[in-house]
Amino acid sequence: MSFTRRHFSKIAGMAAASVLAPSALRATGAEVSGQKIGYCIVGLGRISLGHFLPGLLPSQHGKVTGLVSGSPDKAQKVAAQYGVPAASIYTYEQYDQIRDNPAIDAVYIGLPNSMHAEYTIRAAKAGKHVLCEKPMCTTVEDARAMIAACNAAGRKLMIAYRCQLEPANLRAIALIRSGAIGQVEAIESAYGFNIHPGEWRLNKKLAGGGPLMDVGIYSLNASRYLTGEEPQVLSAYSSVIDRDGRFDEVEENVGWTMKFPSGIVASCNTTYGANMDGYYKVHGSNGIIELSPAFGYDGIHLRAQVAKPGGGQGHDEIDMPAPLKDPQQFMVEGDYFAECVVNNKPIKMSGEEGLRDMELIMQIYRAAGMNTACITGGTQDAGSGREV
Amino acid sequence: MSFTRRHFSKIAGMAAASVLAPSALRATGAEVSGQKIGYCIVGLGRISLGHFLPGLLPSQHGKVTGLVSGSPDKAQKVAAQYGVPAASIYTYEQYDQIRDNPAIDAVYIGLPNSMHAEYTIRAAKAGKHVLCEKPMCTTVEDARAMIAACNAAGRKLMIAYRCQLEPANLRAIALIRSGAIGQVEAIESAYGFNIHPGEWRLNKKLAGGGPLMDVGIYSLNASRYLTGEEPQVLSAYSSVIDRDGRFDEVEENVGWTMKFPSGIVASCNTTYGANMDGYYKVHGSNGIIELSPAFGYDGIHLRAQVAKPGGGQGHDEIDMPAPLKDPQQFMVEGDYFAECVVNNKPIKMSGEEGLRDMELIMQIYRAAGMNTACITGGTQDAGSGREV
Repeated sequence: MSFTRRHFSKIAGMAAASVLAPSALRATGAEVSGQKIGYCIVGLGRISLGHFLPGLLPSQHGKVTGLVSGSPDKAQKVAAQYGVPAASIYTYEQYDQIRDNPAIDAVYIGLPNSMHAEYTIRAAKAGKHVLCEKPMCTTVEDARAMIAACNAAGRKLMIAYRCQLEPANLRAIALIRSGAIGQVEAIESAYGFNIHPGEWRLNKKLAGGGPLMDVGIYSLNASRYLTGEEPQVLSAYSSVIDRDGRFDEVEENVGWTMKFPSGIVASCNTTYGANMDGYYKVHGSNGIIELSPAFGYDGIHLRAQVAKPGGGQGHDEIDMPAPLKDPQQFMVEGDYFAECVVNNKPIKMSGEEGLRDMELIMQIYRAAGMNTACITGGTQDAGSGREV
Repeated sequence: MSFTRRHFSKIAGMAAASVLAPSALRATGAEVSGQKIGYCIVGLGRISLGHFLPGLLPSQHGKVTGLVSGSPDKAQKVAAQYGVPAASIYTYEQYDQIRDNPAIDAVYIGLPNSMHAEYTIRAAKAGKHVLCEKPMCTTVEDARAMIAACNAAGRKLMIAYRCQLEPANLRAIALIRSGAIGQVEAIESAYGFNIHPGEWRLNKKLAGGGPLMDVGIYSLNASRYLTGEEPQVLSAYSSVIDRDGRFDEVEENVGWTMKFPSGIVASCNTTYGANMDGYYKVHGSNGIIELSPAFGYDGIHLRAQVAKPGGGQGHDEIDMPAPLKDPQQFMVEGDYFAECVVNNKPIKMSGEEGLRDMELIMQIYRAAGMNTACITGGTQDAGSGREV
């Protein structure tokens, strides 16, 4: 790791906008293993092994205390690497036994999308807090059930929207809220990649949907956190162009447009057929903010042109270099959740936040299926769209 | 001028994909004044004075031989500058008299949008060819009438889509057609600016519409020439956010999405409320082409990443510096039209091309008014949009 605790503290402060002092680490109704929250990692795939687990290594407030995997060999190897006792390795069948492991305070769910709901609900029933990867699940009904289960158990549920803790994204939000770029008029965003055949993401039963579920959700969620509004109406198109067997179950491309109550129009694209670097541009009356890349594990870069204070000629240039390197975003995420658990603080990337995206994803899919969708009956600007 | 005739010949060859040798300059049914087409400039506003007229100075095949203006002082000054005889200066009331001026072969119409139709039709009736600025006009009916008038008079009509002659845009098209970036999946494009109060563009009677008519048309036209397809379905939203009096007559923002028969989805944005550099990105299965800026008078820049021939690892980078400086695009445009007139060649930016955009603009406006629009009844991909 190329960063220090001291460095981390600064980053975490920037990212979570809170001070994570050791004195803050007191249990408030949750079981806490000493100074650190104990995470049980559910699913030892790419995101767990390559990102979340390495992110816990330098963590102040989180550590790995359990593993759930269908592959005993892999689990034993990871357990040895991270110092997890053999008794804290579980198969999926044994998963409910985490209830009896006091070293496990929370689970991190890094499973294929369609398994999120079941493993969240079982964790809640076992008395554990849940940090669940996005998309939250694959249906609105599952999202509601996940929230209900965590509420019923008195346990926290967070969806892993790490960009909402990432400094460049937070800076973009702060610049917008400060009025630095004036009135936001339009947002453009895209994220996609050219998928390899055989990925579980192409299996609708596991993934729930195509690129919209997987990476389009970044543009969707960003449009909401950048505007601070909920879309009023939206429209969408999807298509399959490459008839090469990859897209027999899920869509290849989705383009969708959302109009927000203020009048801001957001245009988003996602694909599994082309490498589309995740980015967004926020067009304001007095400036522009561009994050490119905006959503990756590494190298997120903000560039902005904002009007000079006092109305001077020209613009000030803001060029914010990428402050976090992989897996630091995961460290911040794991620590933010731990801090919310320990201090019983509200979580901004709550289950309700995930539910809102799930509802919108379904509305986008419906819109793509029938060319239009109406989200709410809210009034619109004269001369602009009206509901059909 | 920083370029030479030799330089120009090379540029024109690149741009118009044709050789403009002097031997090609023979009259084929059109009146031609010696070696050069004589243009009468109709409207002495910014685009005429700042771009088209300077563009004619180094032209091989065009020269200014007449002026039409409501301002005698301005007209006399421009006439002196460009060597136009006093007898070839006309007021709008005298416009039809160009019929009797054999030095005038064609008109260049640089008037507010709502005047394009009338001055095109009157020019055709006076026996003159017409090079008309975009948007072609402000209604579909006018566009049809303009085409009919030019056809009836046996005169050429070209809409000034200069990007269709611009080397970087042509290179983008050629790269796409060659398969260099694989199958195109999605296109993103935007163009807009923060308009000053009092511009004629804000007057609906003169402009016909807002930014969609004025600069959004670049993204619309580019989506068509990049795909080589016509949109099958589209949806759109418009809004007015800045209630500062500028947008009492025309819209401030439009975002629209088009789906093409191949499945390509194009997302476009335009605004009069923010400075939105004109650009496009073409996302292909094996690469990306980005023109940024894509539509300006100067500095158009192509950057592409294309798969290595033979399937090698990584990508080849193409970074094509801006080859034309203002007013060279206008020189190319004036010469292309002249050559089509002289050789009686079909014009790719024909009246029909302009009509197609006018039809789509109206469909986008209708879609923004009712959240959806159906262009054709063509079948679509299973699982994707269907007409409502």
